[in-house]
Amino acid sequence: MTHPQITLIQIDNYGPWTVTPTPRRETDLQTLQSRLYADLVQLIGNQDGYVFFARFDNMVAVTNGIDRDGHAKIQESIRNRYPVTVSLSMATGKTPGEALSIATNRLQDTGSAQDATRQGVLVGDYLEAEERRGDDVQIAHFDVNDATGKYTDQLAAFDSFVRIEQSYLDLMAHLHEVHDALAFFVGGDNIIAVGGNMTREEYRTAVDHVEEVSGVDLKVGVGVGETAAEAGMEAKHALEACRSNQTRVESPQLIDGD
Amino acid sequence: MTHPQITLIQIDNYGPWTVTPTPRRETDLQTLQSRLYADLVQLIGNQDGYVFFARFDNMVAVTNGIDRDGHAKIQESIRNRYPVTVSLSMATGKTPGEALSIATNRLQDTGSAQDATRQGVLVGDYLEAEERRGDDVQIAHFDVNDATGKYTDQLAAFDSFVRIEQSYLDLMAHLHEVHDALAFFVGGDNIIAVGGNMTREEYRTAVDHVEEVSGVDLKVGVGVGETAAEAGMEAKHALEACRSNQTRVESPQLIDGD
Amino acid sequence: MTHPQITLIQIDNYGPWTVTPTPRRETDLQTLQSRLYADLVQLIGNQDGYVFFARFDNMVAVTNGIDRDGHAKIQESIRNRYPVTVSLSMATGKTPGEALSIATNRLQDTGSAQDATRQGVLVGDYLEAEERRGDDVQIAHFDVNDATGKYTDQLAAFDSFVRIEQSYLDLMAHLHEVHDALAFFVGGDNIIAVGGNMTREEYRTAVDHVEEVSGVDLKVGVGVGETAAEAGMEAKHALEACRSNQTRVESPQLIDGD
Amino acid sequence: MTHPQITLIQIDNYGPWTVTPTPRRETDLQTLQSRLYADLVQLIGNQDGYVFFARFDNMVAVTNGIDRDGHAKIQESIRNRYPVTVSLSMATGKTPGEALSIATNRLQDTGSAQDATRQGVLVGDYLEAEERRGDDVQIAHFDVNDATGKYTDQLAAFDSFVRIEQSYLDLMAHLHEVHDALAFFVGGDNIIAVGGNMTREEYRTAVDHVEEVSGVDLKVGVGVGETAAEAGMEAKHALEACRSNQTRVESPQLIDGD
Repeated sequence: MTHPQITLIQIDNYGPWTVTPTPRRETDLQTLQSRLYADLVQLIGNQDGYVFFARFDNMVAVTNGIDRDGHAKIQESIRNRYPVTVSLSMATGKTPGEALSIATNRLQDTGSAQDATRQGVLVGDYLEAEERRGDDVQIAHFDVNDATGKYTDQLAAFDSFVRIEQSYLDLMAHLHEVHDALAFFVGGDNIIAVGGNMTREEYRTAVDHVEEVSGVDLKVGVGVGETAAEAGMEAKHALEACRSNQTRVESPQLIDGD
Repeated sequence: MTHPQITLIQIDNYGPWTVTPTPRRETDLQTLQSRLYADLVQLIGNQDGYVFFARFDNMVAVTNGIDRDGHAKIQESIRNRYPVTVSLSMATGKTPGEALSIATNRLQDTGSAQDATRQGVLVGDYLEAEERRGDDVQIAHFDVNDATGKYTDQLAAFDSFVRIEQSYLDLMAHLHEVHDALAFFVGGDNIIAVGGNMTREEYRTAVDHVEEVSGVDLKVGVGVGETAAEAGMEAKHALEACRSNQTRVESPQLIDGD
Repeated sequence: MTHPQITLIQIDNYGPWTVTPTPRRETDLQTLQSRLYADLVQLIGNQDGYVFFARFDNMVAVTNGIDRDGHAKIQESIRNRYPVTVSLSMATGKTPGEALSIATNRLQDTGSAQDATRQGVLVGDYLEAEERRGDDVQIAHFDVNDATGKYTDQLAAFDSFVRIEQSYLDLMAHLHEVHDALAFFVGGDNIIAVGGNMTREEYRTAVDHVEEVSGVDLKVGVGVGETAAEAGMEAKHALEACRSNQTRVESPQLIDGD
Repeated sequence: MTHPQITLIQIDNYGPWTVTPTPRRETDLQTLQSRLYADLVQLIGNQDGYVFFARFDNMVAVTNGIDRDGHAKIQESIRNRYPVTVSLSMATGKTPGEALSIATNRLQDTGSAQDATRQGVLVGDYLEAEERRGDDVQIAHFDVNDATGKYTDQLAAFDSFVRIEQSYLDLMAHLHEVHDALAFFVGGDNIIAVGGNMTREEYRTAVDHVEEVSGVDLKVGVGVGETAAEAGMEAKHALEACRSNQTRVESPQLIDGD
């Protein structure tokens, strides 16, 4: 049974800040956003979590294994190094979607994302050490079969880009609607999903669905672990197995229909 | 008449590198990608260009005002600081889409993105100083009307995220198909498009199109300039004008139907 | 009884790399060095260690609480993100100087710093969890009394800079010769020392010595802890106590002559 | 005739900020300082200037070729990305020392470095385009002969570190007292000096002086150019010439006693 712990990370009052007193240079905003993300990746990743950039002003992290103090330290480190602050809302759930919903509601209960007085909120709960299990997190790593040969080198870059983005959105919507899973684009031709208790069959169905609606041919490796880093590394190795075995779904830890 | 200069930036042989000899930690890959992007934003932005992360392994830049030597220096700076190299392909065109197509073809002519021997390519042409004009670049900055009130604070984060992503993809596809323009998500509820010679009417039509197909209510500020930074800052001010005037399209430099 | 664990961090074959095939731009080298240092500060600091930049190509860290696996992960993260690799040599000792000597000798036994085949070495030993004590690390934080009033705002910047640097070198030499301690400049008017079992008296003598030989008036806060972060934060609070009490040495955990 | 343009860069009210409301974690301060420095290196270096970290809260840059607008853009970029602001004071002079003195006095005239109301000052003058010459900047790049063999691999790291630091301080003091030059440690076994109109003889004397007082054997390459980057790259090639020719001073552009 998976037991994901999800943290919603929101830059406080970011929209207004970007245009106060007059619009700030896009170059500086892009640098700020991508470095803030990179720092959160390091701060959370080195404690075995995963962070997805999502909208950049709202990021989503899988934080199994990071407690409230760990979150407070991350928040303080950002406050000490950036001109903006972040609010963090933690929640656990039976599915990633449920956990994110709870985290979102909790944060909104403390005030609007654009309320200038809502700064550096830290709310929510986390898995205590004794509640944690070796199968709390399920991570699926998808990529496009022969993306370079079929897209990058063949189509002009923008067509290939839009086409693959659409297939990813189809995948994200399918996984969320059917399985309450959360999937995010992570660069290149890669999507990483935080699954609930999905079976191998269900991953096969997801991959088939995307091929039907958008014609893009995906493969996926799935891993399970105590943390996102552990499950994610399993998923990467499983994806390599897809490559060598010419299969579309590999998951050493899931059995068919389990 | 716009005369965009577009540079395609490709990390050389990146896919294979990420799994050689075994898959590298996602935490390190995400950090590498977002910092490489941030550095390109600084290197190009401080010469008044814009860079879009696109797929992160393939990035797109508007580089009017940066010549071949400028590109070579950027390429060298990345080589000196990263474990990967980048190839750069420049092109100019009547539309951004045309320029990107030429740039893409030029780069592919030098070898595949996953050819281990194709490293640090620099090809293409750029606008000479005497060819440059004050209206070479058209930048449109879109955002969602009351995104915080309608989406961030109301829906659970993932629903709002997928819905806005879909509206953006609709916008990107429309602008590309109809106007050969290039549009990219830049974080928050923002899309920045590099337009061709689009009129105010055409922007209004684009915004209406998105509302029809996805129900998301956008506004857009458009600017024109010699460089992306100049046009982009105009666009930001025009977007602020939308906010104060409660309008959906503002563009001080475009006349209706021009 | 302090029991410091010191890690020597050496960029492999760095000198030759900076001039191969021809000298690289100083701008890129400075960026590389300071970012590599910043990343090590984060990687080690978020596990409660301290890193000193020292010569930048040879850095010194206090790593109590970080085991061999922790070191391996840090090393891998650098390898995944930089064009250079680092070798790490850990050692423990009765004094910081002893630990650094052992670490240095261990690393040199594996080959020269400029041996192109010596890459990514990880050697040495660390304190096992059961050996660790709450007083393993002693950190002293020095600064100059009224540096801004006396130096920054009064003398032209370079004179004040050289004068304070000389006083710091006097302090570093004294602490090393007499107490086998390691002291490093950390920016501004601050020196941080990793002490052995020094008493409050011995710190007072050190401060007096510097005033005699260089005329610079220092104060110092000293802390003791299980890790560098813990001892270092104590030291910072003690330094604040010096400021409010107008004293030159504060150390809540040391008794006179202990 | 050299005509250096020097910019003093000061973090505003930094000391008080580091302990408000209570002392901030050293890990965050070190990260902030070294990244701020790295960003200034990029912002200034990509316009062909050099920046020295000096004390980190007070940095010194050689900014020939960067005008007031260029400085304003750098200042704004830092303000948009950091929790602290910087003040910049520019000056030109017959010698680097004179320019830095003028810049320092100008900044101090606007208020103390620890005056909370003095924020984001930009004062001073710069070389207009028509005043600039191909020999405005003289850069000397020093290193230690066989530092690795003699120091890094032979002595325990800290002894070698203190010994080389002392020799550098002797060099810095000598160059400043006798020639009003500014010299800074830049990592490894390297010192970079901004010289005035020094002759080859005078560099030889400086190297001899250091050997006499501290026993450390230096070599130096000297370059002259319109900007720091140009002169600095010449200096690096000259230093390589020292290595191949087994000489202690090389400077293709200086004649003996000129």
